[in-house]
Amino acid sequence: MDLSTLRGALFKKNITKILNFCCYEFLCFIHLHFYLVIHVYFFWFCTDFSRISWISDIIVVVSPENIETMKTIIEKYGHKRVTVVAGGITRHRSIFNGLKVFAENEFSSHLLQKPEVVIIHDAVRPFVEEDIISKVVMAAKEHGAAGAIRPLVSTVVASAADGFLDHSLERARYRASEMPQAFLFDVIYEAYQQCTDYDLDYGTECLHLALKYCKTNAKLVEGTADLWKVTYKRDLYAAESIIKDNLSQQVCVITNVKETLAQVGFLLPESLKSQIKVEAISVSLSKNDSRLQNIISGQCYNFVCVNEKRCALQETQELVDMLEKSNIPLLCPVVLILVHLDISENNSFSIGMEDLTTIKKFARETKKKNILVYGLLIQCKEHSRPTRSYKCTLY
Amino acid sequence: MDLSTLRGALFKKNITKILNFCCYEFLCFIHLHFYLVIHVYFFWFCTDFSRISWISDIIVVVSPENIETMKTIIEKYGHKRVTVVAGGITRHRSIFNGLKVFAENEFSSHLLQKPEVVIIHDAVRPFVEEDIISKVVMAAKEHGAAGAIRPLVSTVVASAADGFLDHSLERARYRASEMPQAFLFDVIYEAYQQCTDYDLDYGTECLHLALKYCKTNAKLVEGTADLWKVTYKRDLYAAESIIKDNLSQQVCVITNVKETLAQVGFLLPESLKSQIKVEAISVSLSKNDSRLQNIISGQCYNFVCVNEKRCALQETQELVDMLEKSNIPLLCPVVLILVHLDISENNSFSIGMEDLTTIKKFARETKKKNILVYGLLIQCKEHSRPTRSYKCTLY
Repeated sequence: MDLSTLRGALFKKNITKILNFCCYEFLCFIHLHFYLVIHVYFFWFCTDFSRISWISDIIVVVSPENIETMKTIIEKYGHKRVTVVAGGITRHRSIFNGLKVFAENEFSSHLLQKPEVVIIHDAVRPFVEEDIISKVVMAAKEHGAAGAIRPLVSTVVASAADGFLDHSLERARYRASEMPQAFLFDVIYEAYQQCTDYDLDYGTECLHLALKYCKTNAKLVEGTADLWKVTYKRDLYAAESIIKDNLSQQVCVITNVKETLAQVGFLLPESLKSQIKVEAISVSLSKNDSRLQNIISGQCYNFVCVNEKRCALQETQELVDMLEKSNIPLLCPVVLILVHLDISENNSFSIGMEDLTTIKKFARETKKKNILVYGLLIQCKEHSRPTRSYKCTLY
Repeated sequence: MDLSTLRGALFKKNITKILNFCCYEFLCFIHLHFYLVIHVYFFWFCTDFSRISWISDIIVVVSPENIETMKTIIEKYGHKRVTVVAGGITRHRSIFNGLKVFAENEFSSHLLQKPEVVIIHDAVRPFVEEDIISKVVMAAKEHGAAGAIRPLVSTVVASAADGFLDHSLERARYRASEMPQAFLFDVIYEAYQQCTDYDLDYGTECLHLALKYCKTNAKLVEGTADLWKVTYKRDLYAAESIIKDNLSQQVCVITNVKETLAQVGFLLPESLKSQIKVEAISVSLSKNDSRLQNIISGQCYNFVCVNEKRCALQETQELVDMLEKSNIPLLCPVVLILVHLDISENNSFSIGMEDLTTIKKFARETKKKNILVYGLLIQCKEHSRPTRSYKCTLY
């Protein structure tokens, strides 16, 4: 099962199954530099811990039957510094297994270097920002333990055994405990070692274990609204909308290096940038440009290529190849708008139509790779207004 | 400002403003039969309390500056049994104002009959089901007070004054208090009368007031996941997706009464009904059919009209008029698929094209009314397979 199938399953199929899957089977750790984090591999669009330079190793905890799938995904997407570990039957047992990788020889084929601080994150909070991870880590380094919190959305009430209200809590005095949390490794590992079976089976809160067994009062760090827990079907709707929103926030405008296009290459990004994040690069696509490579691997899903040759399909093919190699079209369609400026003296309607037919054929092929090519052919005499005569087609 | 503008504002503009707007300005009460409920007028697609027959009156509490807008909306959509009341500066003050309509002469031009039970609901929980309202009301009738609860999504922690963890609550013993809540009128009204200014300004929980001032322990009723509180931008995304999902769950297939179409009128709903809720009616549209009227006012947004006359636009116009009169296209586009079966012996390509041009022109007009007309012309000889030759066009 590759990630796009997995994602399809997440958004379309049985929600109950998915939720178990998120909560217990895809708890993932990331341990990098000196930190360890539980991470979210199923939401590939979300925060990618392996892109945070100061995190040195990532431990992904999954249920035993999903280990091979997870390893395939990690290999396919070229993620580095990731160790996959078999989870336990509860949240706390899974986290404990992840921690053992640094401390118990028999648990792992090679013992990873014991970290100073570990970060623990949930698979069900896909949109955590680097800033909050950093704040929680710094607080844990200073105080031994730290965790993100959020204001309560609803008042919390205590229910008596007979199903009647016992008392309600004053909302302002309490907070929802969210993830990420971070700990000095020695604090959290000792806490887990001292845990009772009851803690491991029924406990929900790592901060509680650090307090109970190591007398460490965690520093509470105000988190952002993005830290919410994907729990219900509506949360999947929300997550999908946020992902779609993010994907349409950035466009890369690629112009050929030739002088004729310099003005377009300048004006188009200028007019777009009030509404969308624009990366403008002037490059010959046939040369493997590292900046373009970075933009693609930074998950840009929208490209506008401005070219003066009527049918510069070879160069476009190079871009399509780069995109395909990056695997990003596996996750979501990439949109590629080809703008061909035809400024030759003898441009004609029939030549334009021929070009469009060629692009159309090309677009049909790329669509199979989840790359949607749209073509815009602008014909004009040199030095005249380029919008005077144009034809546009969409595939 | 009409409701579509209002909705646009909700989904597109400043979220902070919208949330205040939801929380304080659009707190609405509904009091029907013997019940009173705060309701959600801004989410028009959501549970419509005035369709619940056993609710006798609805009190809508809005901020003074929005009273006229709210009255206009109520009039426009023909909602009955609704009284609009000016809210206070906090949630509890607004609810108290709503209750006074039944008890204090000077507060209302005509005193409404004091209800046995009142329901209180929030504008920010748009998808409440009649079933849970009914359960909460029954429990309140028996025990004096009742409220919906949900399991906690995150562990709740108490924060010490210095920002460190004081203690964490055992998640299983606590619940999130949600809406709707219901009370014997005498219980909740007495509780509000005894409230201190501190309660009115800083309190958040009606169940707490009933317990504190009337020694009434509310019965806690397990609610459904739909009761969540629209609080953050992601919740608006989720709400919009749920609304869209609901709108595409029902289609009405309308066939002309003529015998030729009887088979289509039977087969089409049969093949659709495994995927979508189908209402099939066989009716001459020119007669004002009450069943069709009911389907429209039940917020059906999808219609398929099967007709054998090549261009039965007059009948379609009748349907468009009915839809326009219902105001439902103001809220969301209505989709209308016209299927014209041309089974005449002398059907020809050119006649088909003429029909399509006529439908296209018609569709351009209806689009201005937010009714999207799609046309499908199927030409075939009588008794031959209807799919043998066809033309299809979309506007």
